[in-house]
Amino acid sequence: MRIAIINPNTTASMTGRIAAAAAAVASPGTDILGRQPAVGPEAIEGPFDGALSVLGLLKEIAAAEVEGVDAHIVACFDDTGLDAARAMTAKPVVGIGEASFHAVSLVAHSFCVVTTLSRSAPVIEDNILRYGFSHRCRRVFATDIPVLELDNPASGAFEKISDLIRRSIDMGAEGVALGCAGMAEFAQGLQREHGIPVVDGVTAAVGLAEMLVRCRLSTSKSGVWAQPTRPYVLERF
Amino acid sequence: MRIAIINPNTTASMTGRIAAAAAAVASPGTDILGRQPAVGPEAIEGPFDGALSVLGLLKEIAAAEVEGVDAHIVACFDDTGLDAARAMTAKPVVGIGEASFHAVSLVAHSFCVVTTLSRSAPVIEDNILRYGFSHRCRRVFATDIPVLELDNPASGAFEKISDLIRRSIDMGAEGVALGCAGMAEFAQGLQREHGIPVVDGVTAAVGLAEMLVRCRLSTSKSGVWAQPTRPYVLERF
Amino acid sequence: MRIAIINPNTTASMTGRIAAAAAAVASPGTDILGRQPAVGPEAIEGPFDGALSVLGLLKEIAAAEVEGVDAHIVACFDDTGLDAARAMTAKPVVGIGEASFHAVSLVAHSFCVVTTLSRSAPVIEDNILRYGFSHRCRRVFATDIPVLELDNPASGAFEKISDLIRRSIDMGAEGVALGCAGMAEFAQGLQREHGIPVVDGVTAAVGLAEMLVRCRLSTSKSGVWAQPTRPYVLERF
Amino acid sequence: MRIAIINPNTTASMTGRIAAAAAAVASPGTDILGRQPAVGPEAIEGPFDGALSVLGLLKEIAAAEVEGVDAHIVACFDDTGLDAARAMTAKPVVGIGEASFHAVSLVAHSFCVVTTLSRSAPVIEDNILRYGFSHRCRRVFATDIPVLELDNPASGAFEKISDLIRRSIDMGAEGVALGCAGMAEFAQGLQREHGIPVVDGVTAAVGLAEMLVRCRLSTSKSGVWAQPTRPYVLERF
Amino acid sequence: MRIAIINPNTTASMTGRIAAAAAAVASPGTDILGRQPAVGPEAIEGPFDGALSVLGLLKEIAAAEVEGVDAHIVACFDDTGLDAARAMTAKPVVGIGEASFHAVSLVAHSFCVVTTLSRSAPVIEDNILRYGFSHRCRRVFATDIPVLELDNPASGAFEKISDLIRRSIDMGAEGVALGCAGMAEFAQGLQREHGIPVVDGVTAAVGLAEMLVRCRLSTSKSGVWAQPTRPYVLERF
Amino acid sequence: MRIAIINPNTTASMTGRIAAAAAAVASPGTDILGRQPAVGPEAIEGPFDGALSVLGLLKEIAAAEVEGVDAHIVACFDDTGLDAARAMTAKPVVGIGEASFHAVSLVAHSFCVVTTLSRSAPVIEDNILRYGFSHRCRRVFATDIPVLELDNPASGAFEKISDLIRRSIDMGAEGVALGCAGMAEFAQGLQREHGIPVVDGVTAAVGLAEMLVRCRLSTSKSGVWAQPTRPYVLERF
Repeated sequence: MRIAIINPNTTASMTGRIAAAAAAVASPGTDILGRQPAVGPEAIEGPFDGALSVLGLLKEIAAAEVEGVDAHIVACFDDTGLDAARAMTAKPVVGIGEASFHAVSLVAHSFCVVTTLSRSAPVIEDNILRYGFSHRCRRVFATDIPVLELDNPASGAFEKISDLIRRSIDMGAEGVALGCAGMAEFAQGLQREHGIPVVDGVTAAVGLAEMLVRCRLSTSKSGVWAQPTRPYVLERF
Repeated sequence: MRIAIINPNTTASMTGRIAAAAAAVASPGTDILGRQPAVGPEAIEGPFDGALSVLGLLKEIAAAEVEGVDAHIVACFDDTGLDAARAMTAKPVVGIGEASFHAVSLVAHSFCVVTTLSRSAPVIEDNILRYGFSHRCRRVFATDIPVLELDNPASGAFEKISDLIRRSIDMGAEGVALGCAGMAEFAQGLQREHGIPVVDGVTAAVGLAEMLVRCRLSTSKSGVWAQPTRPYVLERF
Repeated sequence: MRIAIINPNTTASMTGRIAAAAAAVASPGTDILGRQPAVGPEAIEGPFDGALSVLGLLKEIAAAEVEGVDAHIVACFDDTGLDAARAMTAKPVVGIGEASFHAVSLVAHSFCVVTTLSRSAPVIEDNILRYGFSHRCRRVFATDIPVLELDNPASGAFEKISDLIRRSIDMGAEGVALGCAGMAEFAQGLQREHGIPVVDGVTAAVGLAEMLVRCRLSTSKSGVWAQPTRPYVLERF
Repeated sequence: MRIAIINPNTTASMTGRIAAAAAAVASPGTDILGRQPAVGPEAIEGPFDGALSVLGLLKEIAAAEVEGVDAHIVACFDDTGLDAARAMTAKPVVGIGEASFHAVSLVAHSFCVVTTLSRSAPVIEDNILRYGFSHRCRRVFATDIPVLELDNPASGAFEKISDLIRRSIDMGAEGVALGCAGMAEFAQGLQREHGIPVVDGVTAAVGLAEMLVRCRLSTSKSGVWAQPTRPYVLERF
Repeated sequence: MRIAIINPNTTASMTGRIAAAAAAVASPGTDILGRQPAVGPEAIEGPFDGALSVLGLLKEIAAAEVEGVDAHIVACFDDTGLDAARAMTAKPVVGIGEASFHAVSLVAHSFCVVTTLSRSAPVIEDNILRYGFSHRCRRVFATDIPVLELDNPASGAFEKISDLIRRSIDMGAEGVALGCAGMAEFAQGLQREHGIPVVDGVTAAVGLAEMLVRCRLSTSKSGVWAQPTRPYVLERF
Repeated sequence: MRIAIINPNTTASMTGRIAAAAAAVASPGTDILGRQPAVGPEAIEGPFDGALSVLGLLKEIAAAEVEGVDAHIVACFDDTGLDAARAMTAKPVVGIGEASFHAVSLVAHSFCVVTTLSRSAPVIEDNILRYGFSHRCRRVFATDIPVLELDNPASGAFEKISDLIRRSIDMGAEGVALGCAGMAEFAQGLQREHGIPVVDGVTAAVGLAEMLVRCRLSTSKSGVWAQPTRPYVLERF
């Protein structure tokens, strides 16, 4: 099985870390293809960056389709462009935001999200509402550490996330979803420290994509994700 | 007061009709500037087209900012790119989808939406959920007439919409929202025929934009619609 | 265009201030008619006062109908008697509570309400639930300053409201709705002080009423707001 | 124990039938006092009639307080004036609409309501939303038989209600609430005919009022139902 | 009238106190039969205990049916086994958890729950969601005093509950539901101390059961609570 | 990896088919252990059967813990006993009902469920509400074919399910979840016939369990699923 995991921002080092995290949990025989757009924002911090990243993301989806992958993962916690991506392919497409909500709700009755910037929290809250997890999510916290500072030890990201997990536990949350692809490598350490499930969406999405492929489930083409009515026009952009 | 109304698709005749409908309801002293992207889909039929239209839409928002408008209207019923547009400006930005839901709920206890393609209905339903009108909306109907066929008399658009309004009334709906900017010119005729409020989002959005400007309300910059963290990069695309 | 704005309490000075706030935002050519009942509570503080004010309110609606207005505004934040008022006329009727929720949700992703007495908060919360804004409203705060003390500088109303706006911002609210017609004159000052949208329902309602009139939308008579089955009996009371 | 059951309309024969239905289910030692306003609508058909009935209803609440009752019942299915009535007394006050929803949900997983006029259905739906039973109620049906025709055999009320119960069962409803005090006497016959619980709100309200009195529970005065801030002014009206 | 009140745990002293509390509020002519399983957990603290108690509970329901009672009460605040119990009988079956939510919502616009262990709070929250009271319940608090310590004065139960009622009032709750059958005897004292309604589910359930019996309402057999398809197999366990 | 899949009913042939379906989708290196209780109902048709099956299910969970499995699956679509099972182990436990809702929502914007008996539909609806998928699920249909007749060709199960899938598509559902473990073998055929995703919960649960194990996520012990307070007492039953 081949799964394309597309980082919709253009920061190559982040793509590398995302692909490594994905590969570490893939089952035997699954290949992970890390991809990123050639052009677009270096990081997705809020809906403006999100919108600017979509065209590049869709071009990578199109390229991965040509390569013949079995499933796609959109590796931005805001699930940016997810509906448009699904319209382009009958292969399963999983967003890492939705993946983390599905996963955490299987091991925790209620959860919190810890994300990067405050401006992203409402984007995540909107998604949680649309997906149906509002009553399971106690709060979306922001560290206000920029995405590209997460792997800079000077940012104190691990400690700040850890503090917010402590507050989540105080609020009764039984689990936590880390709200950025760039936090993937913190998950296991945080889980050990706090003794509750700490979900990284990248790894959860790999598992969900494998599940869909093995169950031979493909994206429904009968409704909102139907094949576009006009021929592909991505090359015009 | 100057209001830019941006048709996110590239069909100039549709932009003209939208701007005319807007101008017809604008209050004395309000100028309507009809705009459209140079590049993008000719019509927005589903989330793929919606995603492809956003970059062009945002460039028009940027251009209108330079022109010094007082408010922007996004004239696609899916409210495509609305969050990203709001992040670019402190001026009010109103989507015609949301405008129609706000307007119809002031004159009808429950309503239906009549839109173009079935694939757009879930996009609209998602928006209705996020905005909070799910319990007021009985159903989103689709005529399955393509956007660009609406003004072709051979499409029978008026009659098909009228049939679905009849079904809406049978379901207890007290009003109807027309789910496409291209249906604006049908509103008054349908209203006369059926005797219930039939809301066109274009005209409703003009009124809402004027209301926000007169009340000196501007888009909050304290949260999700904060100014983007990176310098404008639209020209890079 | 002529809009009747009816203060459902009997405090004439408050009616004057409401009408002045309304006139200040009306578009050219719109006349504002400030009205109030001859008999009823001096202020509406909770559901008992609200109930007692309705008969007087409805008599003013009837009188304004005779005067030939184009729309009515009910200028109590609890939207007291709104459904009954709508049943009496095909003209649009807008409540200032609902107006403020519609307006603030167009410029703020989430908001708080700051009202007068604690006992009014649940009335407002019930309305917010019925209108669909529960997930957008973080909290309804009360200053516990009585309605008629708002314009008494000794009450410290501006400062207390300002404190609660600060708490609203701490909770992540991107905007605030002022929960009493008597707070209209504070809105612009509070907005300048806090840098987020602060919505006054009186002015928002004027804009919404103008929008409905210009779009030729009238109150649906096909359902809950149908013409009463018995001849008007207001004069019997 | 003494329970005042107040029919908010002025049709004495209906008050008599309501009081008789109530007395038939009261426990030993409970006295039922049937009351009605001196002035007001003869029937409550929609929110306009509802608003006009409130003042008379509140005067009856005040009178019953003087008589020293232990609890009050508001015998209109729309629960007209319920919040205002609760503000006047620390005694329990139960509406027959809410009573029927509480009762039916204890014996049926889902239910339908069968009421009189279509214009009343949205009033009931709003109440069901506020009380929390929306997901349990499949539909509010209307017979479109006026309230005062219910006991006229020529109206065919029993048969029409019976037809709508049949449709309710087809929709999967496990129980039915009869949506008008004037339907009380049909409940047992309909229940026998259809073999599912058919709840009359009048009798349910008596049981709930008795329950509250026996449990020594009184209306909370700490919030929305606090004692009015101004001295009783009912006599001024 | 004869009502069986079944304590699903095996602690006889608790059954005695529950039955006494029930008898104290029963109306003249109502007999309360306190029952408990022969085998099962001594206390129900979380879903594991809850599951283990169900078989014993159902056997007591079956025995009470043979005795010819008119209604059953399940006296565990988690409403453990309630759906299964209802499937066994056409008699009304009332859970004390649901009873307390119905009762408190009639006398308080919003409420908190104060229960025993933190692990039980999510069980209660799930029930509140299913019953429809989520928007009325501000929070489910836990004292973290085990069920069987409640009547041990050394546990300080009354004071700890009282503290949490104080916090509930600070949060705007107008009433409180005590979240364990073992707290029944504290209700009146707490109500006197705090001046807001404090509901005990045991007594509320007695009132609701009497109401259902007097209104001749029985458990619907047309849906989820239909008679089991296989002959009773309880004796096989 | 070893996953125990526990059929909570006692029909061995059904356990065999469930285990075979599970094994067919398991990834390389995953062993499926099919298990069933020694005592309990032969099929789970409604909440009474569900309650009777729980004790046997929990004993199998305990036995599988001793065997050292990595995850457990509860193979009843009602997710019977799921919370209790989770309290017994830190290993992931997945219900096939929840699994199918998570899976179908990743490939279909809206879905229907097709289950066996009508009496099971409300159990499933309650679960869907608690899990958060109510707005995604258009309807839960019942074939009214008993569980143990599904694999009897004379029952016409495939055709009846197929008919209801057709109705689901007519209602706009983009996917379907098969609401019984005994329908697993129909999934691929139905999917081919109707061209939309048809999800079987057994196979979806295998994928979810593998995902959780690979991501090293275990059941939270900090809340509702905390280790029981009393020593295991299963052997006492």
